[in-house]
Amino acid sequence: MYRKEIKVTDCTIRDGGLINKWQFSHDLVRTVYEAVNCSGVDYMELGYRASAKIFSPKEYGTWRFTRDQDVREIICNSEPKIKLGVMVDIGRVEEDDILPCSESPLDFIRVATYLKDVDKAIDLANHCHEKGYESFINIMAISTAPFFELEEAIRQIDSETEVVAVNIVDSFGGLWSESVHKLVEIFKTHLLRHETGFHAHNNQQLGFANTIEAIRKGANYLDATISGIGRGAGNCPLELLLSFLKNPQYSLEPVLQVIEDVFVDLRQEIEWGYLIPYMITGVLNEHPRTAIAWRQDPEKRDRYLDFFQKMTTPECYEIKN
Amino acid sequence: MYRKEIKVTDCTIRDGGLINKWQFSHDLVRTVYEAVNCSGVDYMELGYRASAKIFSPKEYGTWRFTRDQDVREIICNSEPKIKLGVMVDIGRVEEDDILPCSESPLDFIRVATYLKDVDKAIDLANHCHEKGYESFINIMAISTAPFFELEEAIRQIDSETEVVAVNIVDSFGGLWSESVHKLVEIFKTHLLRHETGFHAHNNQQLGFANTIEAIRKGANYLDATISGIGRGAGNCPLELLLSFLKNPQYSLEPVLQVIEDVFVDLRQEIEWGYLIPYMITGVLNEHPRTAIAWRQDPEKRDRYLDFFQKMTTPECYEIKN
Repeated sequence: MYRKEIKVTDCTIRDGGLINKWQFSHDLVRTVYEAVNCSGVDYMELGYRASAKIFSPKEYGTWRFTRDQDVREIICNSEPKIKLGVMVDIGRVEEDDILPCSESPLDFIRVATYLKDVDKAIDLANHCHEKGYESFINIMAISTAPFFELEEAIRQIDSETEVVAVNIVDSFGGLWSESVHKLVEIFKTHLLRHETGFHAHNNQQLGFANTIEAIRKGANYLDATISGIGRGAGNCPLELLLSFLKNPQYSLEPVLQVIEDVFVDLRQEIEWGYLIPYMITGVLNEHPRTAIAWRQDPEKRDRYLDFFQKMTTPECYEIKN
Repeated sequence: MYRKEIKVTDCTIRDGGLINKWQFSHDLVRTVYEAVNCSGVDYMELGYRASAKIFSPKEYGTWRFTRDQDVREIICNSEPKIKLGVMVDIGRVEEDDILPCSESPLDFIRVATYLKDVDKAIDLANHCHEKGYESFINIMAISTAPFFELEEAIRQIDSETEVVAVNIVDSFGGLWSESVHKLVEIFKTHLLRHETGFHAHNNQQLGFANTIEAIRKGANYLDATISGIGRGAGNCPLELLLSFLKNPQYSLEPVLQVIEDVFVDLRQEIEWGYLIPYMITGVLNEHPRTAIAWRQDPEKRDRYLDFFQKMTTPECYEIKN
């Protein structure tokens, strides 16, 4: 029943941190790590690696930087079954921030890029690969990418890097089944040497569904987060994805346990999941930042019609800027 | 871009009433009716029609019975654009409860049935048709229906009734894209005279996604509820469906307005939407009643692992009975 080539990456801390500036305690991250490691998931992205010269540690929590020493404190000298890694943004990390893989507890690095910066992403991914890490490139905001330019970028990544997979990232939660099918077909057509991956967002309650559609078309690297935690409407829930995949390697039980131990309370503190403003940005294929700002204003947060009208009339300039 | 044959049925009050025994005030139902009527949606199912000899009006609210006089109080002698109707269950309504259509403010009646009771459903649908109503048959719990028996039932409905559509009802939220495709294909193969419809549940966050898949395969009668309200994990959200359909007949604005006016507060009073126990029954392709009972116990409601283990071991007998 299951496809053995499929690998799951848990992004709970990295993507969840977009809500609270990565201010998760070591205890929380350790509990999540232990659950994910125990569940048999293949990869875990613990946070971003970023330069403390660019982001202030006073403002941002540990997992904006995810130093090697923080990772060691989480795994407590154990030998994880799961591969551990971080995400890096172009221009927000310096080469010195990345030690050789042999000196690090990390196994992989994922480079996040917009289509326009693919050349820089290739350089950074190659740098990570040369230092011994499994490397990946995630192409963000893909629901707005012109296909011609996308095809060229994918061919270039295919021939010029040694990444494990190139991931389709639906940053705006704007895709649905037919657009997912088309994108995975494009990736699989032009990626002759590398795998295709998929990272969903749930603005239109399609995060899990779109991940299923990516699987059906042959994507083998799949992202998810526990309880769907993530900026705005959140992500594909790990508990749904593991249930669907039917791979006996995966166990749902540690994930259910950590949801009841950690995520029920966490949801009382920080907000994520399907809400009308996020739906509206998803439907309009827009970045959710306007919806997130709207939800943070106590007087506006539930004024849905007002938000929709501002986003669909010339007034939208006011809200987007 | 849009398919003019597609008709949308709002089931907000009927399906939402499964949470609170249909104890919605006339004011609330009138507000919802006005929004749905104004949105351009084609059909609105206001509640169940049931016999007061079978259900006690002391225990159940107005919309368990949905008498013609209640409907008249809602529409206030106006002439609705939308077609209004009720759902009936086999054995829970008497012929005398249904006046001729010419004497009623209702336009349609939908007969809900399990596959085993299709013969009775045909009789009841024909009775409604003879009284002048548009009639429909909804086949519930379809994710457990043996295909051979289902095909026979559909052929029988096709030849023996004048229903407008036969609706696939995913009562357990157990379907996903490929099973939706297969079911719609079966319906369309054997329904030579009638339309195919689809009623989703959201246990696996696939309510909207499965509705899209039904559309892609040719289902033209689609059910949804405002804010996805409905028993357990709820339904396909009307706001998502209208946004997707792109039919200029439909307006999202009245739906957004009524969500902020009514449903934000209502959600503080009654629970619906994706939660882990509902997910577990969806994944296991089981009726959500065990999950609903679990959520109603204050000591158990967030003990997800315990629920999963009980549902997947011999102990499940204890929880199901």
